[in-house]
Amino acid sequence: MPAKPVNPDIQKERNTATFNCREFSVLWAGGEERFKEKKALEKMFLEDPALQDDLPISYLSHKELYEHSLRKACIIGEKIRKLRADGEDGVDTYNALLGGSLGAAILKEGNPLALHYVMFVPTIMGQGTMDQQVEWLSKAWDCEIIGTYAQTELGHGTFLRGLETRADYDASTQEFVINTPSLSAYKWWPGGLGHTANHAVVVAQLYTKGEFRGLAPFIVQLRDSDTHRPMPGIDIGDIGTKLGMKGVNNGYLGLKNVRVPLKNMLMKNQQVLADGTYVAPKNSVLTYGTMMFVRCALIRDTAQSLAKASTIATRYSAVRRQSPIDPNQPEPQIMDHTTQQLKLFPQIAKAIVFKTTGDGIWNMYNVISGEIEQGNLDRLPEMHALSCCLKAICSADAAAGVETCRLSCGGHGYMDCSNFPTIYGMTTAVCTYEGENTVMLLQTARYLVKVYGQALNGEKLVPTVSYISDAVNQTKFANFDGSLRSIVKAFQFVAANKTRIAYEQIELRRKQGHGTEVAANLCGTFLTAAADLHGRAFLAQTAYTELSAMSREVSPGLAEVLQVVLELYLVDACLNRIGDFLRFIDLTDQDVTKLEVRLENCLKRLRPNAVSLVDSFDLHDRVLDSALGAYDGNVYEHIFESTKKNPLNKEPVNGAFHKYLKPFMKAHL
Amino acid sequence: MPAKPVNPDIQKERNTATFNCREFSVLWAGGEERFKEKKALEKMFLEDPALQDDLPISYLSHKELYEHSLRKACIIGEKIRKLRADGEDGVDTYNALLGGSLGAAILKEGNPLALHYVMFVPTIMGQGTMDQQVEWLSKAWDCEIIGTYAQTELGHGTFLRGLETRADYDASTQEFVINTPSLSAYKWWPGGLGHTANHAVVVAQLYTKGEFRGLAPFIVQLRDSDTHRPMPGIDIGDIGTKLGMKGVNNGYLGLKNVRVPLKNMLMKNQQVLADGTYVAPKNSVLTYGTMMFVRCALIRDTAQSLAKASTIATRYSAVRRQSPIDPNQPEPQIMDHTTQQLKLFPQIAKAIVFKTTGDGIWNMYNVISGEIEQGNLDRLPEMHALSCCLKAICSADAAAGVETCRLSCGGHGYMDCSNFPTIYGMTTAVCTYEGENTVMLLQTARYLVKVYGQALNGEKLVPTVSYISDAVNQTKFANFDGSLRSIVKAFQFVAANKTRIAYEQIELRRKQGHGTEVAANLCGTFLTAAADLHGRAFLAQTAYTELSAMSREVSPGLAEVLQVVLELYLVDACLNRIGDFLRFIDLTDQDVTKLEVRLENCLKRLRPNAVSLVDSFDLHDRVLDSALGAYDGNVYEHIFESTKKNPLNKEPVNGAFHKYLKPFMKAHL
Repeated sequence: MPAKPVNPDIQKERNTATFNCREFSVLWAGGEERFKEKKALEKMFLEDPALQDDLPISYLSHKELYEHSLRKACIIGEKIRKLRADGEDGVDTYNALLGGSLGAAILKEGNPLALHYVMFVPTIMGQGTMDQQVEWLSKAWDCEIIGTYAQTELGHGTFLRGLETRADYDASTQEFVINTPSLSAYKWWPGGLGHTANHAVVVAQLYTKGEFRGLAPFIVQLRDSDTHRPMPGIDIGDIGTKLGMKGVNNGYLGLKNVRVPLKNMLMKNQQVLADGTYVAPKNSVLTYGTMMFVRCALIRDTAQSLAKASTIATRYSAVRRQSPIDPNQPEPQIMDHTTQQLKLFPQIAKAIVFKTTGDGIWNMYNVISGEIEQGNLDRLPEMHALSCCLKAICSADAAAGVETCRLSCGGHGYMDCSNFPTIYGMTTAVCTYEGENTVMLLQTARYLVKVYGQALNGEKLVPTVSYISDAVNQTKFANFDGSLRSIVKAFQFVAANKTRIAYEQIELRRKQGHGTEVAANLCGTFLTAAADLHGRAFLAQTAYTELSAMSREVSPGLAEVLQVVLELYLVDACLNRIGDFLRFIDLTDQDVTKLEVRLENCLKRLRPNAVSLVDSFDLHDRVLDSALGAYDGNVYEHIFESTKKNPLNKEPVNGAFHKYLKPFMKAHL
Repeated sequence: MPAKPVNPDIQKERNTATFNCREFSVLWAGGEERFKEKKALEKMFLEDPALQDDLPISYLSHKELYEHSLRKACIIGEKIRKLRADGEDGVDTYNALLGGSLGAAILKEGNPLALHYVMFVPTIMGQGTMDQQVEWLSKAWDCEIIGTYAQTELGHGTFLRGLETRADYDASTQEFVINTPSLSAYKWWPGGLGHTANHAVVVAQLYTKGEFRGLAPFIVQLRDSDTHRPMPGIDIGDIGTKLGMKGVNNGYLGLKNVRVPLKNMLMKNQQVLADGTYVAPKNSVLTYGTMMFVRCALIRDTAQSLAKASTIATRYSAVRRQSPIDPNQPEPQIMDHTTQQLKLFPQIAKAIVFKTTGDGIWNMYNVISGEIEQGNLDRLPEMHALSCCLKAICSADAAAGVETCRLSCGGHGYMDCSNFPTIYGMTTAVCTYEGENTVMLLQTARYLVKVYGQALNGEKLVPTVSYISDAVNQTKFANFDGSLRSIVKAFQFVAANKTRIAYEQIELRRKQGHGTEVAANLCGTFLTAAADLHGRAFLAQTAYTELSAMSREVSPGLAEVLQVVLELYLVDACLNRIGDFLRFIDLTDQDVTKLEVRLENCLKRLRPNAVSLVDSFDLHDRVLDSALGAYDGNVYEHIFESTKKNPLNKEPVNGAFHKYLKPFMKAHL
């Protein structure tokens, strides 16, 4: 990777690492074969000159950025077409290209065609009948038509029943008449909707024979196949500039008496017959499945964000020198400041734990969705509750962690050439999409409170909440000995008590005369706090189990590092919720000080391997796209190079001097 | 202000307020006269069509944004010239225009001429001799020359002694020869340096007669007065795109054997004689003074950021409806969700407390700087310590608060038309500039640890740290009765104990054989935690004293609201540091639950006045510049209007369709 000589400060770090970097890289990639695939894909995509930018995209206007993004999206699409023709059908490959790190390296502000592949095609596959799949799927796969998925509206998001768009069946012509009856009913946000897609799956309230039937998906043609002009009744455009995802071409869509034929309603789950007779779906569990699937995937994305941000900040902190520790010594690498270590290393640990948890929950999802296919829905609510709170916690922690990393790089982190602003924009978006985080926590909490009632009744609980039963029978947490195992147990005890309090507060308000729903709203902050602890207890447990297991299977050098990572993660997590620990567990001031000293100690032990740990994430320089985080550590040179690309610097005197500044300066002379 | 009919949901909120909005607005502005001045300035600047944008600036490229910003900056400069000619010399006016809310309304991504007014001119005033002021000041005031202030370098920020730029005096020609001897010595960051300024104060390491003399400021001409081309030896340009402050034209500057005459060194404090004899400054206290001044001003800026963000989010939350509380009822205003209240209302309370504290510390600064001018430096370290930690805490809390407000608006907060991204960019920058926050906290902590030693020795402490003496003599905090007064006292007790632990940990490491400086570095996280609590204890104390005093002077309706704000602020602040409270004070699980219920109660009591409270901040719609936060509450209409300005939407089919997408879609046909 390195083209210039590597910065000696960073080389020194690599020379003194006590574990084998490649061993962890392979583990991180998911095994030797995956590791090789990853390298091959990187070669194929990142070395194609057509997919490289001369000008950093932060210098483009919104319109230019869209045009630039569409150009590259088409090249990627062409390559996907070739891969498919060659028999490649790896979902992983498409994911890496469309949403993963490879995609982010090529189109760092997002791909206007992504929703076509990840939502439009899968929706037809999941909700279309066999006939519909025959009609639409090959056209969609071949990109003869480009689609998107239009559900959220200007005035309506999370609460689906609130959607206003309606489809009225007209039996006389065997068509649906689709309308957005008000401004707040406009479809809002779908990626590629603005100027890219010519079709969409539009979700609308279905009416047949004058009766309301619930939500249904319709394939609607938005633009003419040849001219790309909007079809009659279609009001469509790009919603405008955003904090991030700037190349996605998020759009709006108004429909006025748009008629689509009967066969355009996706009818695998529910049907409308020619005369307007409605056949209801058997169950709606499968929709749950998709949402869980996406949330599980998002957990891994948050790990990736933290991996990127911590790589950039750690490498920078090895090169940057500032503020002497000993006034008689030169300025040290800033990574030698304990306060800097406390910013960086917990983010590295979280990246590893979130990745491990993401992988674990992915496996769990596969097991449970297998059970669901067999008609066994026992573990669905448990899995739903877990995926909701983990999505919320991991996205919130990752966004905060990215910002901590950025701020740890001082002013230089504020420059776009650090790539932190883009990483933050992509990461914080996860807090909102696929279920807003507070709504997610409330979903989990609702489940926990129900389970708590079951525990009180002595019912046996499913695995991920069984700790609640234990705590119901145990009023005091004995034997906090500071071992990692006891920190995990303590997390569960604390989580159970947070659920207890939420339960008790709701009961109290019910006794005061409030209905259950109003009582739950009043207790909202108790509920979200309980869900937060539930998720954190699960993360602690998973970190402990998985990293311990991993340590047993790797070489001793790597095992030792993983053990430090685990201890750092758990002690830091505990101190971040120390108020809850002190509230429910008898700990003295000295106990807390001991944990704090231990944290300091973990930081010190991780210090010599920090650079090599982030190296092991094996993020290609193009994936990082950061002057501060390049593998060679030549930070100042890369920053300076980036300014040379700045269009403002292509001319020594800007035209605005003559036009505005000179007349102003000379005005009174 | 409202041009369209006000949204009925928001009008309802205004109708049911229990206090007089205007009364608080006047108080917030600083009195009736200031309130009128503010309105007059708004009229003069915000109604000038030349200062209004047809196209939101988020659609511009970096280069276009610079040119646009310079145009407006010149118009503002022209108006300032007129104001001065008319005898207006109000510093407040210039501040409002260059850094304050008015400036942000006109140039929301910053003003490339700002540093000329706020750093270049004041530096000449503060560090130039009378002769130098005569030579430079009138030219600078008249904007015949445009200057900036070049101190930080690519490789050097906070630690000034690390600067590499050097000025060698050549007695034979009576000139200084200025050089940036390496890439990392390049001046980096100064606003307006890129393509705007033709002069700069350059800070460099001074050498005369071959000896090092310390830092000194030099006036350097950067560009030709007529052609604006860079002078010989000057390598200059714009550093590139950033997270925020995108219109400021931050620049870089390399100097190669640039010669400036002897008289260009600013010599009020130190002198170089013609033969190279160096006359050292009497003391360096005055530099301290400037830094304190700026940090005190920043505290008020953070209050302004929170006021803006909470106004936007609160108004949006009154209009947006989502997720039924009672399933049989329609979707409520989202402000009725307790979880939403917990996001918004603490930010409103913090805006008020930070403003009050900012005003208070401003007065304190004036008193103390008066004492300093009299040669009395007694309170300088105390004031320095306080301004450092408050700058850090208020900026970090404000940045987090802005993001909380943004996230509380769901997806719509992510759109630039909400204005949250810009407000965040401006606010989070404060965490880094004028002293990076961690460095600031360490400065405060160094002082606290020293003071703690004095307290142990029984010495009398100065007012803002006297609570440490109390705590040294009191091992247990008795009588936590939950009153606001006792929360304030408890904050001080907790803060004193955090300082005690930092002190003890340093001592411990010294006993283990580490030098003081290394011991302090090892204890970095203990130190920053102590400084954090010191600042929070001061904020709690100030909130209690000032808001109580204010309540006694206003009408009963407003007094009641201010009391709720105070209680909400204190209870929330306490719960946010509950781990520290439980660590040092005997509180039971039930005590904590009681505080949590009380927080919920404060939220409920503030709810009816929330919209009117933010209305009282009296932020002009142009200052907010937010589709979500406009006074009339017509959120969806404003969002939709903003999309109509999007250049992408000016043509039904984008050119990239014909160029890239169509060939791709038809490739296989």
